[in-house]
Amino acid sequence: MPKLYRRVRKKAGTPPGTLVYQGEGPTDGIKISLIRYNEERFEENEPAAIEEAFPLGDGVSVAWLNVDGIHDPRVIERVGESLSVHSLVLEDILNTGQRPKLDEGEDYFYIVLKMLAYDEARDELESEQVSLLVGSDYVVSFQERVGDVFGPIRERLRQQRGRFRMRGADYLAYALIDVIVDNYFVILEKIGNRIEEMDERIISDPSPAALREIRALKRDMIFLRKSIWPLREVIGTLGRSDSNLIHEPTRIYLRDVYDHTIQVIDTIEALREMIVSILDIYLSSVSNRMNDVMKVLTIIATIFIPLTFVAGIYGMNFDFMPELHLRWAYPATLGVMAVIALGMLIFFRRRKWI
Amino acid sequence: MPKLYRRVRKKAGTPPGTLVYQGEGPTDGIKISLIRYNEERFEENEPAAIEEAFPLGDGVSVAWLNVDGIHDPRVIERVGESLSVHSLVLEDILNTGQRPKLDEGEDYFYIVLKMLAYDEARDELESEQVSLLVGSDYVVSFQERVGDVFGPIRERLRQQRGRFRMRGADYLAYALIDVIVDNYFVILEKIGNRIEEMDERIISDPSPAALREIRALKRDMIFLRKSIWPLREVIGTLGRSDSNLIHEPTRIYLRDVYDHTIQVIDTIEALREMIVSILDIYLSSVSNRMNDVMKVLTIIATIFIPLTFVAGIYGMNFDFMPELHLRWAYPATLGVMAVIALGMLIFFRRRKWI
Amino acid sequence: MPKLYRRVRKKAGTPPGTLVYQGEGPTDGIKISLIRYNEERFEENEPAAIEEAFPLGDGVSVAWLNVDGIHDPRVIERVGESLSVHSLVLEDILNTGQRPKLDEGEDYFYIVLKMLAYDEARDELESEQVSLLVGSDYVVSFQERVGDVFGPIRERLRQQRGRFRMRGADYLAYALIDVIVDNYFVILEKIGNRIEEMDERIISDPSPAALREIRALKRDMIFLRKSIWPLREVIGTLGRSDSNLIHEPTRIYLRDVYDHTIQVIDTIEALREMIVSILDIYLSSVSNRMNDVMKVLTIIATIFIPLTFVAGIYGMNFDFMPELHLRWAYPATLGVMAVIALGMLIFFRRRKWI
Amino acid sequence: MPKLYRRVRKKAGTPPGTLVYQGEGPTDGIKISLIRYNEERFEENEPAAIEEAFPLGDGVSVAWLNVDGIHDPRVIERVGESLSVHSLVLEDILNTGQRPKLDEGEDYFYIVLKMLAYDEARDELESEQVSLLVGSDYVVSFQERVGDVFGPIRERLRQQRGRFRMRGADYLAYALIDVIVDNYFVILEKIGNRIEEMDERIISDPSPAALREIRALKRDMIFLRKSIWPLREVIGTLGRSDSNLIHEPTRIYLRDVYDHTIQVIDTIEALREMIVSILDIYLSSVSNRMNDVMKVLTIIATIFIPLTFVAGIYGMNFDFMPELHLRWAYPATLGVMAVIALGMLIFFRRRKWI
Amino acid sequence: MPKLYRRVRKKAGTPPGTLVYQGEGPTDGIKISLIRYNEERFEENEPAAIEEAFPLGDGVSVAWLNVDGIHDPRVIERVGESLSVHSLVLEDILNTGQRPKLDEGEDYFYIVLKMLAYDEARDELESEQVSLLVGSDYVVSFQERVGDVFGPIRERLRQQRGRFRMRGADYLAYALIDVIVDNYFVILEKIGNRIEEMDERIISDPSPAALREIRALKRDMIFLRKSIWPLREVIGTLGRSDSNLIHEPTRIYLRDVYDHTIQVIDTIEALREMIVSILDIYLSSVSNRMNDVMKVLTIIATIFIPLTFVAGIYGMNFDFMPELHLRWAYPATLGVMAVIALGMLIFFRRRKWI
Repeated sequence: MPKLYRRVRKKAGTPPGTLVYQGEGPTDGIKISLIRYNEERFEENEPAAIEEAFPLGDGVSVAWLNVDGIHDPRVIERVGESLSVHSLVLEDILNTGQRPKLDEGEDYFYIVLKMLAYDEARDELESEQVSLLVGSDYVVSFQERVGDVFGPIRERLRQQRGRFRMRGADYLAYALIDVIVDNYFVILEKIGNRIEEMDERIISDPSPAALREIRALKRDMIFLRKSIWPLREVIGTLGRSDSNLIHEPTRIYLRDVYDHTIQVIDTIEALREMIVSILDIYLSSVSNRMNDVMKVLTIIATIFIPLTFVAGIYGMNFDFMPELHLRWAYPATLGVMAVIALGMLIFFRRRKWI
Repeated sequence: MPKLYRRVRKKAGTPPGTLVYQGEGPTDGIKISLIRYNEERFEENEPAAIEEAFPLGDGVSVAWLNVDGIHDPRVIERVGESLSVHSLVLEDILNTGQRPKLDEGEDYFYIVLKMLAYDEARDELESEQVSLLVGSDYVVSFQERVGDVFGPIRERLRQQRGRFRMRGADYLAYALIDVIVDNYFVILEKIGNRIEEMDERIISDPSPAALREIRALKRDMIFLRKSIWPLREVIGTLGRSDSNLIHEPTRIYLRDVYDHTIQVIDTIEALREMIVSILDIYLSSVSNRMNDVMKVLTIIATIFIPLTFVAGIYGMNFDFMPELHLRWAYPATLGVMAVIALGMLIFFRRRKWI
Repeated sequence: MPKLYRRVRKKAGTPPGTLVYQGEGPTDGIKISLIRYNEERFEENEPAAIEEAFPLGDGVSVAWLNVDGIHDPRVIERVGESLSVHSLVLEDILNTGQRPKLDEGEDYFYIVLKMLAYDEARDELESEQVSLLVGSDYVVSFQERVGDVFGPIRERLRQQRGRFRMRGADYLAYALIDVIVDNYFVILEKIGNRIEEMDERIISDPSPAALREIRALKRDMIFLRKSIWPLREVIGTLGRSDSNLIHEPTRIYLRDVYDHTIQVIDTIEALREMIVSILDIYLSSVSNRMNDVMKVLTIIATIFIPLTFVAGIYGMNFDFMPELHLRWAYPATLGVMAVIALGMLIFFRRRKWI
Repeated sequence: MPKLYRRVRKKAGTPPGTLVYQGEGPTDGIKISLIRYNEERFEENEPAAIEEAFPLGDGVSVAWLNVDGIHDPRVIERVGESLSVHSLVLEDILNTGQRPKLDEGEDYFYIVLKMLAYDEARDELESEQVSLLVGSDYVVSFQERVGDVFGPIRERLRQQRGRFRMRGADYLAYALIDVIVDNYFVILEKIGNRIEEMDERIISDPSPAALREIRALKRDMIFLRKSIWPLREVIGTLGRSDSNLIHEPTRIYLRDVYDHTIQVIDTIEALREMIVSILDIYLSSVSNRMNDVMKVLTIIATIFIPLTFVAGIYGMNFDFMPELHLRWAYPATLGVMAVIALGMLIFFRRRKWI
Repeated sequence: MPKLYRRVRKKAGTPPGTLVYQGEGPTDGIKISLIRYNEERFEENEPAAIEEAFPLGDGVSVAWLNVDGIHDPRVIERVGESLSVHSLVLEDILNTGQRPKLDEGEDYFYIVLKMLAYDEARDELESEQVSLLVGSDYVVSFQERVGDVFGPIRERLRQQRGRFRMRGADYLAYALIDVIVDNYFVILEKIGNRIEEMDERIISDPSPAALREIRALKRDMIFLRKSIWPLREVIGTLGRSDSNLIHEPTRIYLRDVYDHTIQVIDTIEALREMIVSILDIYLSSVSNRMNDVMKVLTIIATIFIPLTFVAGIYGMNFDFMPELHLRWAYPATLGVMAVIALGMLIFFRRRKWI
């Protein structure tokens, strides 16, 4: 289950800009891939060392450097040096507890996003921080782990047809953001399905297992909200930015992904409301059930307790109990008991308990 | 019951502007109807193929092209080409999970709305996405299914009297929005009636069936809110737009439909509050009921349990129990029992339990 | 009880500006009264037909036309024609489901207000829509029913002293709004009294009847809020309007009635909070009561059930039960029972149950 | 306990500016005190009649007229005439149901505040409306009752040292507001103490008395909020006002009292949250307690009911019950009973009930 | 546990600017330390008396005066005189009930912060007020107690390498704020861990001890929120200030600490939501448990009560009870009892109670 708060690794009080990895991803191999493309050209390779990738931009093609694994501060440092990125930005890349945000540097944008995945096997949300450095002719993307949702983008770049390769680094950045946001819908559909299922089930089966499920869903929603909500402002600010890193035709695409983000947030809010409602209904259902249990107990007890008392009376051993010697006393007593029971049943029927 | 989240059909990561139908409507026949009118003229026909409808506008009359069924991307594509609509807009037309929104293109507006219907037979809300493309001399409306609420508008256009045919495409767009918003009141009245009925009933009958009904109502309200809330901004923005697609006299009508939308939203909020209140009262009622059940059990049990104990005493078989041989012991015991019972009753009366 | 949503009479889809009465008031006689006054002059009469009232304004005196009953569209139409009022405004006058609002026409203001009354006999809120058309030298007021709160204003106009007759139509409009808002305080006091009474009572008597009362109060508050909240903006906008229909000295009066409206809204919010708090306390009280009932049951049952068991033991008919033949066995058994009972009582005392 | 709504004394519909006292303070003697001071001079006297106080300002010293008791409209009227105060302001002085507000007249400010006191004896909040009229060389303060928190200010004025007497009427107004706001902290500390005490106690003692206390605290908080919240805007507006009644050096003091007001509001919000939390915990505690009661009942009943049944079996009087005649039957039966009881105990232990 | 409201020591009504210590810190020894540094130079000493520290700034190096202990107003007064600080600011330094705030003086900033610590031993939050006076060449920091989180900053200043010593007083102020904010993450992680642990445990163990823990956590969160929320605005305003006390390169660092603050606030909000959710689940769990207890009681009671009644019947001592003399009556009765018991069990199984 994702943590709702940042793990503190770095000792509080170290100088700002100190590069220490602060995340929970694996710390073995780092995978670097580099794609360079323009309308005519497409090159893709995996440099063994980060140094081979520089200089990144050449002014005529767009370079996309993707780094899987951010646990090695030296790699980040090299990228920072080569692209003149502020040390605070480098620190943020390493710190995976960031909220989505946008920093505008002198000749680059720094964008933090959360890439989410839904682990079907364990029914759990997984979160990975993606950092983008967007310059005039390059995009550098940092991920915590190998494996991502950018496959279709690579595929589209490989194919010469399509307008993708005619566009600049800003469009590539847009495409990366878009595919991450599109993926939120997949997550929301899965969680939405679980919520609907729960909503169907909750009245008839308000079990502790259901409560556990509700708890997990609620927590997922808190996490989703925290991860996605700030994105609205990030993309909005990006779209409105007057930086010349963003070309005019890209703005309409940013507007589109902005709309998608709002749609995601709307859905999160609606699902959150659903969960609150489910929890209320859970409580009501449990109360209802207890009421049912109580009614059965009350009906049985109030019918038989008086009868048992009557039986107790004639079980007493007093010497002088004239009734005991009457011939019709036993059937009469049974009759009285039947009348008492019947009276009780009518009383319960009137109260609509049975 | 309407889904609160978008069904994902399209594979996340396909290029933006890819036209794939993403909705749940039927995918058989598409029905196209075309109306052209101005003050003197009125033509209505149903072209077999979308191509026959173009060119749409002729500068002297207003053309209203209505497409029922959006599962065929080629139809949308043709419309897009012919009217130079941005591919992202075309994608949005096909994606029925949109929230109400307004996109301002170079020479057109794109408006997304939700047309709601209440299926009386199944007591369920139904939702359909309506997309409007509004140009200087045309309106194109896309619906998911055949059948709509635009009948009265067609009728008014057919009749020469009335000022409708003297006005432009902006007024037609207003009229379409107005009739959709007017229809929300019909929905709200039906749901409002169900809520009032529930509100009357809930104290005397807090049954699981009522809980089910509350759950459904709450869900409908979440859905309604999600579908209608953003409309406020859409119509507000449209009314304030300085585009010359909106003529001055139409603004007052947009203002009017804006007022109606706020009225709808106000009512939704009030009904939502009602439902919250009903759920609270449900819980209180169930508690009350349980209290009643408990009281009956407690009264019966606490009266008879001590009496049964007394009877048990004299049912014991000890050889030396002097009381057993006294002549007045039996009536005396019965008397003691009566006193105990009476004492209990007085105690309960004092506590106001009976 | 007032409805929280508009009754739909008009068929959705009729052209905007169609005049159909949409309300629940009576539809018999319409009462028209006309007052004309200036500093020297005062005329009051009741024209039999609406036509006799026109032309309304004469530039030198202020005309106040009051129409009780709006079920006859022709009356509204005549007023509209004579004063050149937009047809959408006329439609709004007839539609009693409006929220309070302000429309600024070319040479008039259109103001919608809710006049509330508290029917003591039935303990119910009643609501009536009041529409004001305010021009440079006239005010037209429309009410749903005969009978209003404007009596004191008529009285003040009849008396020559006072500055009222020296002022214009804007001041008359202010006076009408002020008297309606003043009346809200009367309503709030009555509801406030009921809420306080309930608040006093709820801990000691959490009965279903109290729950019914709470429900009704909550509903009244939702209704009040819906009816009054938008008024804040209406009066605020009116006060800030730069229209020359509002004279400078009137602004300070509008400011005053604006303050009153905020005071009303503040009070509504505080009372709403009180009701929420009462409902919470209701639930707590019911739980408390159930706890009390449970304690009595538990005390009685846990004391006597073990004793009855002991009595049961010695009521068994085994041939070989040596205790039965001991002389002191009976008193000893009674002694043991007393010890058990005492032990239980001490246990309960420790738990602070008794 | 303070009322949350204004008592309506004045008949709704009387002309605006009608001076009728609308409060609950005493209506006997009015006490007037007048202080005139500047750097060199200090005069203090108690005029018998209000007329003796005029003319108030003399341009070279600051006059502070304090009126305790506002039930005599003639006094207010005289002040109004002498200082040319708008009749609506005079009406507001008399109406003690005002929310804190600021009115800017032509050459004066009118400020409404709530002076709060905590009646230790009755554990109740008391509220008094203080109105300030602040001109260039005078401050008039109106209070409902004799007795106030202004003692220290009078004392500071009497002493020549200190910068107080060198400053203008605006500083005096600030000082009066400051002492009232400072007093809120005293109130909040007392209420905060009661809330903390309750918070400590609530888990171990969720009694109806505690519920009553919570209810009273909640109500106090609603009242405090209503009385203090608007003050933020009042003081903020005063500080930003460009009127030349406020001298530049006073602004920093107003800023300071503004900070204090926000601090008060922050604290009120935190305490409100505490109370909500206490009520939630109360409900949980009551549930917990009931659970405990239930457990005891269930343990005792489920252990003894089966045993009593077994005893009942062998208490039957059938002629042919072979077990009855076996020598070891009685001890065997007792043994079986012991086993049943033990089994039950183990079962409860497993469920962690005991 | 931290108090949510300011302890009032000072008598309300004393003149503004009166220097009286209002806090709960220790009142013995005050520790003063002074660091002067620039690129080449570093001096650190602990003046015995505050006078030795003045004059603070010399224009060529930055002076950092740290005062631990604020209970001696004379020290504060000396600082105020020497740096021409407004008396209201000095009063605020002494009053430890401040909310975080920023005051812009003529040639200094006054910043109030809360330094938090988590006392592991007592599982309690501790709060200390830190006041910063930031001038062009000096920073004065006031703390309530000896001991702080500024150690790493002193260490960094001592080392010549690093850019710290090349920067001005604004950067030092930033560094102090940054280390305090960084420390919030440490606190949040600890509280977050406790909340997660509670969240895991609450369904299976809804004990009163857990309730106590939840209560404490909720209170901590209210306190954290109150202490940190206003910081957002403080740092935001500082970063946007156009004062020339803030150099351009420092702004990016302030922006960074601003991002951190928002991250902290986000986390606080998420944790608050978690606690609300935990409390809801607590209530549901208790209800669930009670339901379980009830079921056991009901099953046992409803099975045995009728059986005991049957046994009671044949325990009666009537002379004429023909069944008693039948040979097969006893086994038949036992058989009937078994059938009843079985029937009950099937009934319970159907209801899914067992």
